[in-house]
Amino acid sequence: MKASALSSLQQLTFKSLNLHRTLTRTSNLPFLSTTNRRIHSSSSPPPIMSAAAATSERARAPPAIPIPSPPLTKFKIALCQLSVSADKDRNIAHARSAIHHAAANGAKLVVLPEIWNSPYSNDSFPIYAEDIDAGHDASPSTAMLSELSRLLKVTIVGGSIPERSGDRLYNTCCVFGTDGNLKAKHRKIHLFDIDIPGKITFIESKTLSAGETPTIVDTEVGRIGIGICYDIRFPELAMIYAARGAHLLLYPGAFNMTTGPLHWELLQRARAMDNQFGEVMATTEHEEATIIAEIDYSILEQRRTSVPVTKQRRGDLYQLVDLQRLNSS
Amino acid sequence: MKASALSSLQQLTFKSLNLHRTLTRTSNLPFLSTTNRRIHSSSSPPPIMSAAAATSERARAPPAIPIPSPPLTKFKIALCQLSVSADKDRNIAHARSAIHHAAANGAKLVVLPEIWNSPYSNDSFPIYAEDIDAGHDASPSTAMLSELSRLLKVTIVGGSIPERSGDRLYNTCCVFGTDGNLKAKHRKIHLFDIDIPGKITFIESKTLSAGETPTIVDTEVGRIGIGICYDIRFPELAMIYAARGAHLLLYPGAFNMTTGPLHWELLQRARAMDNQFGEVMATTEHEEATIIAEIDYSILEQRRTSVPVTKQRRGDLYQLVDLQRLNSS
Repeated sequence: MKASALSSLQQLTFKSLNLHRTLTRTSNLPFLSTTNRRIHSSSSPPPIMSAAAATSERARAPPAIPIPSPPLTKFKIALCQLSVSADKDRNIAHARSAIHHAAANGAKLVVLPEIWNSPYSNDSFPIYAEDIDAGHDASPSTAMLSELSRLLKVTIVGGSIPERSGDRLYNTCCVFGTDGNLKAKHRKIHLFDIDIPGKITFIESKTLSAGETPTIVDTEVGRIGIGICYDIRFPELAMIYAARGAHLLLYPGAFNMTTGPLHWELLQRARAMDNQFGEVMATTEHEEATIIAEIDYSILEQRRTSVPVTKQRRGDLYQLVDLQRLNSS
Repeated sequence: MKASALSSLQQLTFKSLNLHRTLTRTSNLPFLSTTNRRIHSSSSPPPIMSAAAATSERARAPPAIPIPSPPLTKFKIALCQLSVSADKDRNIAHARSAIHHAAANGAKLVVLPEIWNSPYSNDSFPIYAEDIDAGHDASPSTAMLSELSRLLKVTIVGGSIPERSGDRLYNTCCVFGTDGNLKAKHRKIHLFDIDIPGKITFIESKTLSAGETPTIVDTEVGRIGIGICYDIRFPELAMIYAARGAHLLLYPGAFNMTTGPLHWELLQRARAMDNQFGEVMATTEHEEATIIAEIDYSILEQRRTSVPVTKQRRGDLYQLVDLQRLNSS
């Protein structure tokens, strides 16, 4: 089977200020389909529909949205793996340089890792946090992303930075369109609170609040579902994004060295396979690196026709409910 | 991390009568927890419950069942990978021999592969099908399983055979207790209808009917959720079994050589990881083989405490509904 998509395992070891050695990693799991493969839309009852199709329809509530035609079929994506220091100005300059490099090499979509402007620790988050909504001087990290997306005419999924919003801190990913405007903001939904004695203890909820919504955004390179690191641990989120018609999933991450090697590749491959997104195309080791690869949305049309999982679900036995979409419909 | 569970990738190439080369494979994905880790049962409202726990509770409907204490903590499981011929009597004798061998080596649970008494083809299914409910002479394959389970005092998850029931044919897995009684019958829920041009076309639904219910059964070696081959492609089934308190998932399989190498190991590892079952402990190549390994239900207590995924789900954002359990409650 030809490589049709990309799930990078960029990894970078760095020394966090206070806590433990951590991996910074950016991943992306596109899934690829160009046309509406649903049998009918809700506004037009189907003239003929098999029992199996009617049953599979009910496996998602509300029923899955047809995947829209993507704005383009092929483009280059860049995943920038960045080293992180205690010097925020240096981190911003470093990210700026990586984005320039990616755009110069033809990338139309540039992805940064989780918490790229700050060491990964609860002590650091409040110090490095920025008021994204205030913008400009209150958020030099996202101001840089906005500037470069407009200047270089690229879509940027800006990894994540600690965000200050009123009394709360979030782990937040900003998506900028090619006009430099902030198109979406994803606040990490599933906080990483784990305790493996003798190996790693990290309680993000000591400082961070969890986001309140899934985030899916239409960009100039397709409809993208966003998760941050531990969000990938929960299969429901990827399943919801698939049912919302995503072309691509992106999970900026910064894994640790205990659960990371156990899970990161497997998690990406599992989400890609179960939702028919694609497959791993490129990976790095732990060093700083930028991976550039081509996304081709055209190939999975055939793949989804060959193995029509979405038409074979047993909606008479199980149903996944997207509560936000259900409540808004 | 110590190997605490087993997900075997037993594989065996055989030449089916009419169609294509196929792999026979038996897999098992135990997940391991000894005590009730739920905060409360539905009959006793919790005195103190965090917002997060209350939220995660709602991610399954009905709420997940506490995992019962298993009847034993450690035992040996045997996965028998069998070659299959056109001679049913030879196939039965062959399986009989493998079960004897497994029991002689200490196995308390013996698992056979999918369609072990018949070539894997739509032409063969009607010819080799047996009336399991009539039993005895009408079903020599399951009569043998019943006899051996009682004689050898082992639980047998009997892979699957083509079942005739009235006018219909099913792909059916029988589970026998150590008293020789049929404890459960799982009819493959998701039929394998795929068409990859130039590689493999198989439409099971040409001859087979799909089963109507998930199957979870309490045995002398724990609560087991059963799927057959392509059933593993659908993450919802494993998630439902986990929410029903399964100790172990078993998916007898017979993969083909196109989608098999792409998916079989990844599917098992994904289901095990997402539902915190365990990890791959043993694998075979394509030859006939019996793998024996130890299941230890005690280890994942710590694992689930360390990474408490089931308490971190966002039941305010997504909900997986088990319709059979919902309708019966």
